[in-house]
Amino acid sequence: MRSPTPSEGLLADEYALEMMRAYWLAGQHRRRVVKEVFFRKAPFGGQLALAVGINQVAQYLAELKLSEEDLEYIAGLGFEPEFVEHLRGLRFTGTMRAVAEGTFVFPGEPIITLVGPIEELTYVEARILNIVNPQTLVATKAFRVVEAAEGDPVLEMGLRRAQGGDAAIYHSRAAYIAGVDSTSNLEAGRLFGIPVKGTHAHALVMLGGDEKEAFRLWAQSQIKLGRNPTFLIDTYDSLRSGLPNAIAVARELGIRIGAIRIDSGDLAYLSKECRRMLDEAGFKDAKIVASGDLDEYVIRDLKLQKAPIDMWGVGTNMVVAADQPSLGGVYKLAAVDENGTWSPRIKISENPEKVTHPGGPKQLIRFRSKETGYYLADLLMLPDEPLPDPDKPFLIFDPVHTWKKTVLRNFTVEDLLLTYIEDGKLLLPDQPPDRVTAAAREWVAVQRKRFYEEIQRLTNPASYKVDLSEPLWRLKMQMLESMARH
Amino acid sequence: MRSPTPSEGLLADEYALEMMRAYWLAGQHRRRVVKEVFFRKAPFGGQLALAVGINQVAQYLAELKLSEEDLEYIAGLGFEPEFVEHLRGLRFTGTMRAVAEGTFVFPGEPIITLVGPIEELTYVEARILNIVNPQTLVATKAFRVVEAAEGDPVLEMGLRRAQGGDAAIYHSRAAYIAGVDSTSNLEAGRLFGIPVKGTHAHALVMLGGDEKEAFRLWAQSQIKLGRNPTFLIDTYDSLRSGLPNAIAVARELGIRIGAIRIDSGDLAYLSKECRRMLDEAGFKDAKIVASGDLDEYVIRDLKLQKAPIDMWGVGTNMVVAADQPSLGGVYKLAAVDENGTWSPRIKISENPEKVTHPGGPKQLIRFRSKETGYYLADLLMLPDEPLPDPDKPFLIFDPVHTWKKTVLRNFTVEDLLLTYIEDGKLLLPDQPPDRVTAAAREWVAVQRKRFYEEIQRLTNPASYKVDLSEPLWRLKMQMLESMARH
Repeated sequence: MRSPTPSEGLLADEYALEMMRAYWLAGQHRRRVVKEVFFRKAPFGGQLALAVGINQVAQYLAELKLSEEDLEYIAGLGFEPEFVEHLRGLRFTGTMRAVAEGTFVFPGEPIITLVGPIEELTYVEARILNIVNPQTLVATKAFRVVEAAEGDPVLEMGLRRAQGGDAAIYHSRAAYIAGVDSTSNLEAGRLFGIPVKGTHAHALVMLGGDEKEAFRLWAQSQIKLGRNPTFLIDTYDSLRSGLPNAIAVARELGIRIGAIRIDSGDLAYLSKECRRMLDEAGFKDAKIVASGDLDEYVIRDLKLQKAPIDMWGVGTNMVVAADQPSLGGVYKLAAVDENGTWSPRIKISENPEKVTHPGGPKQLIRFRSKETGYYLADLLMLPDEPLPDPDKPFLIFDPVHTWKKTVLRNFTVEDLLLTYIEDGKLLLPDQPPDRVTAAAREWVAVQRKRFYEEIQRLTNPASYKVDLSEPLWRLKMQMLESMARH
Repeated sequence: MRSPTPSEGLLADEYALEMMRAYWLAGQHRRRVVKEVFFRKAPFGGQLALAVGINQVAQYLAELKLSEEDLEYIAGLGFEPEFVEHLRGLRFTGTMRAVAEGTFVFPGEPIITLVGPIEELTYVEARILNIVNPQTLVATKAFRVVEAAEGDPVLEMGLRRAQGGDAAIYHSRAAYIAGVDSTSNLEAGRLFGIPVKGTHAHALVMLGGDEKEAFRLWAQSQIKLGRNPTFLIDTYDSLRSGLPNAIAVARELGIRIGAIRIDSGDLAYLSKECRRMLDEAGFKDAKIVASGDLDEYVIRDLKLQKAPIDMWGVGTNMVVAADQPSLGGVYKLAAVDENGTWSPRIKISENPEKVTHPGGPKQLIRFRSKETGYYLADLLMLPDEPLPDPDKPFLIFDPVHTWKKTVLRNFTVEDLLLTYIEDGKLLLPDQPPDRVTAAAREWVAVQRKRFYEEIQRLTNPASYKVDLSEPLWRLKMQMLESMARH
């Protein structure tokens, strides 16, 4: 099989072409519209998600172009030559506003808003979601794992189970942004400046068959790099063979044990026994690394049982987001240009959760207490509304139970949506990927302290207020009433 | 953020380098070993899996090479220059045998066997699993979806929820190999010759706000291509608005309705009502397409309730394998060269399921009845064992409950492991990816008829015999006994 070279330009759904063609035939293809990306429900039973993949979306849009090969393929699908010729000029000429990479976001909030000709905004739908959905999902999962580890280092090691090469690379990055400390994945390390770490596999011990001999070979190679080795002790029997052999080899060579790693068995029992044996043998400084089907719940339970584990190797469950492997992020029409003004659009549904917020491009702001530094609430507003005056009390209300009102005082207001692309021009400074990634990681750490920990709790977290401005709420109610009347 | 160009050469775990270096320092890096890829448990509560990704693995191995940039990165990790220089020569010089793309495989069976120097086989572990695990998983999931659809066409439409670009492309391919008929994904269509299909989105209806007007615009564009249009009818209200408007527009334009698509609501109720209304309006030939969170179980239930659905659009649940998003495929040491003969290795575990089959490179054969054409059982054998003589009865036995014996008669034997690479040389004909994909899809269709349907059942399937040859079974028992004695 010859190596196929994937073309990002064709990562789109066929129906996008069908619709673009319909608009083009009707002369409506340049009509300007507003599209917004949001999700309806936070994953994993939590409140929040970490928006990741935003920079990649901006880059995708800025580089959008169909190659000759792409156009040839499209022509072969039976579209008329004039339409294919028209597609040759396809670029993203619109405006993209979005939250900063790594921003904590909540259900219903526009993570990305796009303004531009409908043909362009129709074409890019699937790839945008294909980037943002899984990366946001995995970052959120990793954030929970980091939270459960309570400050212990977490190593991401999911390459072999990730859903493909892209997933392995970008999900390592997402996990790092969320607070994971290192990855096993060399390529993710190279691309994004993530520290890479590794120990050894069972195969090294099985090679010669003799565990002590294998540990000797391993230790000698690590000493040459000036490191105290980490021994994987569970190839045969952690307590009866692995740990005693590791201790014997360390004594024989007169070195310290950097760490031992346990990859199977009951991690609470084994870590306690190993800790005791290490301490008794004089290796109090040796760390214990645990791995094997870990996730935030197992880590939390092991912590509750006081397992003396110092570092956590987390793979599969984090990189595929095993308990919820997809995020239902959507991309919806919010407004359409009608003679120079934005005419709002709403998607109704019998399920109230699925009804969209009309109008746009919306503003998304976050209130922060001047007194405590904590974030208080978010507000969605229509495009022309002025920002709340920080010197005056500001009333917000729950959009469903409208009697639930809160008066905010003594706050600052953060405008969450930044302009990434304006009229097709990328406004971002041309930073290398590792800088962008490091900045997002720092931003996550900053936000972690600004949100009440009750909101970040793993199970049954307190809810964070995401309200609609009064004009937006009124618009939505009017549109719903008028639709219901038909 | 500048566009990062991923390097497949570095898609490896850091610990591989650490181990390769340890072997190299000890002068053992060229020692020949046997590694085997297998999984321990079939996914989704089924019996079997469809091995997919095999050709891609062969290609990866044949092209393995570290670039200057890769080597520079590795040098920056602190390894000695001599070792980095040594890595410059890294190639796959070994032999790869594996099942044909799309072959039905069972727990414990070697899907891929590699023979070669330990340093090479250590390096490629993670990427091989990263290719085979998710593609095999999704192919198996799609196979189940196709089975539930009982011959109805299935459209894969998971691009927007797939875990990244690679997953979108390769999982479309995996689904197609498993029997899905078409994809929404243009790039998957281009690369692998998969038919692409699409209709339109809710956004098209919401653009002008008037559903009938939108259907008119849509129908006119479809007529120009000589097609009877498919209308998405659930933007506002399927029965009160969408379908009546579709019928009205079709009558107005004097055309047939190709199909209607329902994407929300109760699909059983709505499809029955739509069928009735379409028939009454004289559109008996209009098809009904259903989509929205479908998987094999929902499809089966809708069929049981006699929902008159003609085509199924399946996305998220299939492309991320939602109910089990990872396959635990592993890559284990089976034998080590000791002075020119293969010395077997076994990985023991308290969990009997996790104990490996020692020795190799193993043979994997499949017995097929000459009488019925059905497959009867599989057998794992040591490398030097002769194939069973088809003219004589052959006794197989369950490797755990050894009293469960079966005598096979009147059979043919298929050798399941083909040589993809021999001593580093790719033996495959240089076929384009669409040909390889089409051949795998045909092979799946052939096998579907050769396995008893009891084995392919979605829930609680009958078990298929995967036994060990007597020499292999004896070797395993001896090794387990001798280890337990320590």
